[in-house]
Amino acid sequence: MKRGIFITVEGPEGAGKTTIITKVAEQLKKEGYRIILTREPGGIPIAEQIREVILNRGNTAMDPRTEALLYAAARRQHLMEKVVPALNEGAIVLCDRFVDSSLAYQGYARGIGVDEIWQINQFAIEELMPELTLFFMIDPKRGLERIEQHKNREVNRLDVEELSFHQKVYDGYQLLMRKDPDRIKGIDADRSVEEVYEETLHQIKTIIDKKP
Amino acid sequence: MKRGIFITVEGPEGAGKTTIITKVAEQLKKEGYRIILTREPGGIPIAEQIREVILNRGNTAMDPRTEALLYAAARRQHLMEKVVPALNEGAIVLCDRFVDSSLAYQGYARGIGVDEIWQINQFAIEELMPELTLFFMIDPKRGLERIEQHKNREVNRLDVEELSFHQKVYDGYQLLMRKDPDRIKGIDADRSVEEVYEETLHQIKTIIDKKP
Repeated sequence: MKRGIFITVEGPEGAGKTTIITKVAEQLKKEGYRIILTREPGGIPIAEQIREVILNRGNTAMDPRTEALLYAAARRQHLMEKVVPALNEGAIVLCDRFVDSSLAYQGYARGIGVDEIWQINQFAIEELMPELTLFFMIDPKRGLERIEQHKNREVNRLDVEELSFHQKVYDGYQLLMRKDPDRIKGIDADRSVEEVYEETLHQIKTIIDKKP
Repeated sequence: MKRGIFITVEGPEGAGKTTIITKVAEQLKKEGYRIILTREPGGIPIAEQIREVILNRGNTAMDPRTEALLYAAARRQHLMEKVVPALNEGAIVLCDRFVDSSLAYQGYARGIGVDEIWQINQFAIEELMPELTLFFMIDPKRGLERIEQHKNREVNRLDVEELSFHQKVYDGYQLLMRKDPDRIKGIDADRSVEEVYEETLHQIKTIIDKKP
C-alpha cells in the first residue's frame, strides 16, 4: 500500500546533512511536493520516552546490546506512527538517519557486528527500507573540525568520541555503500553548502521522477 | 566462565509458579545452596525504566513489535547486571519467567511469530539459555479461576485478557516444550501446593546433582 517515497540521509558528524536536507525540504515544499522531514524519535511520545532511557546520564551501566534494542524499539514506533502513515498518504519522507546509522555506529564501530544489528532492525522495520539513502561523505577529521567551528551547535555524546571511533563509523558506512550501491548513493560533502545542496536536490528529484 | 546453574520457571497466569518457586528457594537456602531468586526487571534501574515505558497507561499507541523490543532490552540488562554476575559467582539462579514467556505470549498468542521473537531474544541473551525450564502446566481456565479466588493478588494487564488468549499462550508453551524436551520439563500444577513443591524441588535437585 506504500505510495510515497522514503528517503534517508546518513553520514558522520559534521557532514552538514541536517543543514542540507532542511534546505532541500524547503525547496521541494515550495515546488508543491508533499514533504515530511523527520528524524528519530520524531516527536513520537513513546519513542521520546525510550530515548530518555538511552540518554539518561545516570544509566552508566547500560549494556551496548540493551542500547541497540532500545534504538530499534524507538525506530519501530517512529516508523509506525509517523513514517508509514505519511507514506500511505503519498508523501515524500526525508528521514535524518535510519537503519544505516545503527549498522555503522553500533554494528561496525562499537563492534556488536553488522549482521547482529541488522537482525533486530529487520524485526523493527520488517520490509520497509528506504528507496534512496544519501551518504554524506566527508573525512571524519574534517567533520569534527567543522563541528568545532560551529560552537553554537549542541554537542552530543557521540561528538566527543575519539577520532578513531568516527573513522570506524565512516569505514562502516563505506562498507554498507559497497554492499548496497543501488540504494546508497554517496555525496561528496566536503564542498560548499550550495554545491552539496544542488547535488542532493538533484539526486532526490531523480528518484521522484522515476516514480510512476 | 559460567559456573552457576540457570533455571527458569514458566507457565500461564494462576499456575502458582511464584508461590512454589519462593518456597523452593527458601528450602534450598536452608540447605546451604547459594540461591538468587529473581524476575525481570529484577530491581535493575535501567530495566525498571524500560518497564515503565511498557506499562505506561498513556502509551496506547504502542506497536506490538516496539513492545517486544522493549521486553528484549529489559531482559538483556537484567541478564547482564544480575543473572550473569550471580552465575559467575557460582549461584543457582531461579528466574520467574524468561525467553519462553516472550515466545509464548508475544510470538505465539499475539501472533508476531515464534521465530521472529526468537530472533531479537537471541540478540539479547546471546548463548545464555537456562539449563532447566520448569513449565507449570494447568488448564488456563483453571488458572484464571485460581486468580479470581485470590482477590488479594494484584491483577495485571494480562490477567484480564480473554480466555482464548490464555489458551493460545498455553498452546504456545506446549509447542515450545515439544521442540525442546531436554530443557523444558512439564510439571502438573493442578495439584496441592505441597505436591507441586515437592516435584519442583526434586527436579531442581536433580539438575544440581548432575553438575560436576
